[in-house]
Amino acid sequence: MADEWATFGADLHLELRGPRLRAGLMDALREAVRSGRLAAGTRLPSSRSLAADLGVARNTVADAYAELVAEGWLTARQGSGTRVARRAEPRRAEPRRTEPRRTEARRSESPRAAPRRAEHRPGVVPAASPPGRALPRPSAPAHNLKAGTPDLASFPRAEWLKAYRRALTAAPNEAFGYGDPRGRTELRTVLAEYLARARGVYARPERIVVCAGFVHGLMLVGQVLRSRGVRDVAVESYGLGLHADLLTGAGLGTPALPFDERGTRVDDSGPLASAGAVLMTAAHQFPLGGALPPDRRAAVVDWARASGGFVLEDDYDGEFRYDRQRVGALQGLDPERVVYLGTASKSLAPGLRLAWMVLPESLVGEVVAAKGAVDWVSGAPDQLAFAEFLASGAYDRHVRAMRLRYRRRRDQLVAAVAARAPETRVSGIAAGLHAVLALPPGTEQDVLRAAAWNGLAVQGVNQFRRPTVPATLDGLVVGYGTPSDSAWPGALDALLRTLP
Amino acid sequence: MADEWATFGADLHLELRGPRLRAGLMDALREAVRSGRLAAGTRLPSSRSLAADLGVARNTVADAYAELVAEGWLTARQGSGTRVARRAEPRRAEPRRTEPRRTEARRSESPRAAPRRAEHRPGVVPAASPPGRALPRPSAPAHNLKAGTPDLASFPRAEWLKAYRRALTAAPNEAFGYGDPRGRTELRTVLAEYLARARGVYARPERIVVCAGFVHGLMLVGQVLRSRGVRDVAVESYGLGLHADLLTGAGLGTPALPFDERGTRVDDSGPLASAGAVLMTAAHQFPLGGALPPDRRAAVVDWARASGGFVLEDDYDGEFRYDRQRVGALQGLDPERVVYLGTASKSLAPGLRLAWMVLPESLVGEVVAAKGAVDWVSGAPDQLAFAEFLASGAYDRHVRAMRLRYRRRRDQLVAAVAARAPETRVSGIAAGLHAVLALPPGTEQDVLRAAAWNGLAVQGVNQFRRPTVPATLDGLVVGYGTPSDSAWPGALDALLRTLP
Repeated sequence: MADEWATFGADLHLELRGPRLRAGLMDALREAVRSGRLAAGTRLPSSRSLAADLGVARNTVADAYAELVAEGWLTARQGSGTRVARRAEPRRAEPRRTEPRRTEARRSESPRAAPRRAEHRPGVVPAASPPGRALPRPSAPAHNLKAGTPDLASFPRAEWLKAYRRALTAAPNEAFGYGDPRGRTELRTVLAEYLARARGVYARPERIVVCAGFVHGLMLVGQVLRSRGVRDVAVESYGLGLHADLLTGAGLGTPALPFDERGTRVDDSGPLASAGAVLMTAAHQFPLGGALPPDRRAAVVDWARASGGFVLEDDYDGEFRYDRQRVGALQGLDPERVVYLGTASKSLAPGLRLAWMVLPESLVGEVVAAKGAVDWVSGAPDQLAFAEFLASGAYDRHVRAMRLRYRRRRDQLVAAVAARAPETRVSGIAAGLHAVLALPPGTEQDVLRAAAWNGLAVQGVNQFRRPTVPATLDGLVVGYGTPSDSAWPGALDALLRTLP
Repeated sequence: MADEWATFGADLHLELRGPRLRAGLMDALREAVRSGRLAAGTRLPSSRSLAADLGVARNTVADAYAELVAEGWLTARQGSGTRVARRAEPRRAEPRRTEPRRTEARRSESPRAAPRRAEHRPGVVPAASPPGRALPRPSAPAHNLKAGTPDLASFPRAEWLKAYRRALTAAPNEAFGYGDPRGRTELRTVLAEYLARARGVYARPERIVVCAGFVHGLMLVGQVLRSRGVRDVAVESYGLGLHADLLTGAGLGTPALPFDERGTRVDDSGPLASAGAVLMTAAHQFPLGGALPPDRRAAVVDWARASGGFVLEDDYDGEFRYDRQRVGALQGLDPERVVYLGTASKSLAPGLRLAWMVLPESLVGEVVAAKGAVDWVSGAPDQLAFAEFLASGAYDRHVRAMRLRYRRRRDQLVAAVAARAPETRVSGIAAGLHAVLALPPGTEQDVLRAAAWNGLAVQGVNQFRRPTVPATLDGLVVGYGTPSDSAWPGALDALLRTLP
């Protein structure tokens, strides 16, 4: 037996050196059982003889055996020695797969089909060589002008770290415990002041709920609306598919509102007639770029007041407005009928996972209940750091600096396009981190292929069109906020080369 | 008109000083409209006359008017001047309430009834004066021995801050963007090494999914199991109601497994016969405190192998074991049938919202899909800081220091109870941050009342008993890990005064 084991031990290449003798021996034994090299029922050498073979203390082996017995790997019976435990065979060998697998629901169909994987930056456009060229295409885009991400290289690391240090040092002990599902009160207090000042939001700390990004907030509100019996949440004709998917995943229909040259139409004879809520990017339509005209702002809130519905205001880039004319939040028009959703993802960084809702009083309890049951998300130190970052004025300074930077890029984009392709209309330029370049009808796909050819990741407006909306526009959505300062000139060049 | 306005302006107490003239004017006007003090249709003074009244530049007023028109508060028509916009009346005045409101579902009943608000630390026991005393009871508990929270005062702020600074400084720019829903690869790599070493977990980075606490992970796994057609997830007879509620909220039944003097019974003739998964605290039953015996560890994994079910292993305090005999994770027995769920909530702090799952390969895709669609949760800087904290050895040092500290408290608890109430059996003491003090049958409620009287927040075992399980035990669950070092002696004294 001892010889047999010694051979076996040699096969295992046990390396039992250093202070982790027992742990190493246990790992090796577990691995041997797992792999089948030690079959069920195999009797192991006595601890004394294995210890001698391995040149370790007998207790080390005995302890390892005892632990593995405790864990269920081995069995030890008086008179029978230590053996590999007999184990049931798995019912079937499962194929190696990482794709989601669906089996039939046994009870009933769940209305919560798992929505597709979240992706603010949909996949790179499939590339193909433009006709007439035969060069191999670049393997990965060298330039990125996809909308939805700010310039990550400009994240204010030093300032953020300063705020984090101050916040962590000043935090009360209870901040490290389980917290209020609405978020830290320090943050909600500072946010209320900021949102009132910067966005005209009627905000009180007790109506604010901190969440881990816009999609988290939308998911919570969608769940609450669904449980209130709402069937449909109307959406704009163009927008992020992820957002509509999220509502669909909560069991809600998402009829698209029609639009015309003035923007989204909110006549209540359309989908609003039966909708319980409407999701809108009122201050800066995503991706088309316009602000909802004043009469329609009033009309959609009036619809909500008259019908008892809600407007879900996605104020994703409200900080970045370059015109003299500010556009405040719709929420101020009726805080009881508008759910305001804001985020630090565009103004600071998506990686922080910090966003917030300002809720009508009638929804607070339900949203907190939906949130509190599953998570409190954002860590308390990050929330406190953000509160400090806001209160110290660092956030205002950062936003101001970035506004100048993005505005400069926008000006460069507009001037360069005017020089290179003067017939191209650039719209949606009054605000935000992206613009839309109109393309001649029917050319969007060709231009996207040319972009891929030029190593440029960029998207067309039709990638944001709701499935039921007829295709009437061709254009590029140019996220000029996305590149770093050093990458921007190259990305702009690639864009100009791409234009017809 | 100018006079009328001047009077009105005085009523408003407009304070238009400093650089925020326009914003202040806008806020005041919004508030006046919102409150009804400026009724719909009211004609406002011309910008010239209001500017003169207020002593500000005319453009300031004109700009404010223009913005409020853009926002829908006011209307401006040639020849009609600027007026307060006419607005629809709300359909009904909603009563002020923060409690969840339910309306009838119009389409179908959602299986996802909003679960009750998350609470790891259920409410303080309602207090009543013990018979024979007439003193007023303390208004809030002065001492806290409720289980589920570590000593928050011991959070290693300086070490954590060091890790955070290093991580933030070294982070690539892309870390600030939208990330992998599985979590940062840096963290998953370090975690895989740590979990294999410290808990005997068979972990590979690509099977790890970072989540925002155990409940977040359980919610995701529950969703996936439900969408696979699983009806029931068996639970232990005693446990956190929140966890069962979460599964119920996902549309799953939660039959309770029976238990005997050796712990939870896992005969597959019981609820396991029809369950698709079982949620277990195998290494340290919560709250009773025992480790699942080796034969039952093997048996439950064998049940999973034979039936195609899953064991959800809640390894909430695996780091804190005081015996010579370690108990490794169940997951190592069959990584394809056990979902391992770990957390930093007990070892470090719940406020960080950092937890992790190690998944069977067959579940990875579905769990990532369920997670990715709704959030990425934990901020990237915190994930990177935790990776650095682990890799630098600071985590091991912290756990070691806390293990000594908690062990000392456990010893003090055991010794003090033996001296004060020698007939009281203290169990579940081999591990973790809590112990169970057995009470004479039928006395638990009285003791809890006495605890409240003594200003001590503590819970009874029956507060963790599943509703369908008959009451056969009486005991106190004593979270000796909860107080700070300075609060511990007082809390222990209060406990001793409370014992019968």
